[in-house]
Amino acid sequence: MLILGIDPGSLHTGFGLVEKTEKSGSSYRVVEAGRISGPRDLALPARLARLCAGLQELLGRHAPDVAVLESPFHGMNARSLIVLAQARGALLASLAGRGIEIREYTPAEVKSAVTGNGRADKEQVARMVRLLLGVAGPGWPSDATDALAVALCCAQRLRFDRLRDAAPSR
Amino acid sequence: MLILGIDPGSLHTGFGLVEKTEKSGSSYRVVEAGRISGPRDLALPARLARLCAGLQELLGRHAPDVAVLESPFHGMNARSLIVLAQARGALLASLAGRGIEIREYTPAEVKSAVTGNGRADKEQVARMVRLLLGVAGPGWPSDATDALAVALCCAQRLRFDRLRDAAPSR
Repeated sequence: MLILGIDPGSLHTGFGLVEKTEKSGSSYRVVEAGRISGPRDLALPARLARLCAGLQELLGRHAPDVAVLESPFHGMNARSLIVLAQARGALLASLAGRGIEIREYTPAEVKSAVTGNGRADKEQVARMVRLLLGVAGPGWPSDATDALAVALCCAQRLRFDRLRDAAPSR
Repeated sequence: MLILGIDPGSLHTGFGLVEKTEKSGSSYRVVEAGRISGPRDLALPARLARLCAGLQELLGRHAPDVAVLESPFHGMNARSLIVLAQARGALLASLAGRGIEIREYTPAEVKSAVTGNGRADKEQVARMVRLLLGVAGPGWPSDATDALAVALCCAQRLRFDRLRDAAPSR
């Protein structure tokens, strides 16, 4: 099972591909993580096109079973929100155009899945992402860490769903 | 000169292709106008993908020199704004991915260009669009009329720019 977490942004979009290894209950492997960036001096439409091209390139190398994003949008002014929503729309269209299943979780769900605390701060999330993925040191840009956190949240939810489905109903 | 006006929406995106005929100063011809629609029961990502596929199909039939949209976003609640911005982002990425120049005008600029009044209502705009394009009767859905209005605004501005460039500087 290959899960693509995405943290959309018009300048930097983080991504993190997490593979759920079959043998044990909750072990994950980072297949690839990083960011797709567009130069700040490009106009927004050109940056969005660059973003989609980068995503398509990534989807040429890997075939995720599911793509997952945080649901929009928390504590943001209207201007930032509009720019972010446009980046998000461009990415969603590219993903859905390839027939990839898309899931969304709220920021609180992601934080809770990764740290046990829906109000954890960015540093706590980043630290737990590294621990859960067995990676030492910082290494990734923060967008990539955020994308990995969303992917881990999705992995956990899918596991819970599977356990629930397998359990005898009461 | 072929101008593609777009009125983005996640359910219905209006479009209007206007050709500026060379011979006279301000005469236009509608090449094609209509709307691209996605079924309401589709999830947003799938609707966005449908929208982009429809746009790509349109761009397979016509090669506009410039695409033009109203600049975001006026008098809208946050929820509608987010959905609209996502549709807009998907469209912008598709257009810029094909190397098409993109222009934006505010709603007031569009109304002013088409009616002479930046605060005209929808019906006044629709009526002037039909008159300017020499078309009798209603005919188009309102999204298409709005897209044609943006295209006409762009045509007017390009004409003004050309006149200014050609005039001797003072």
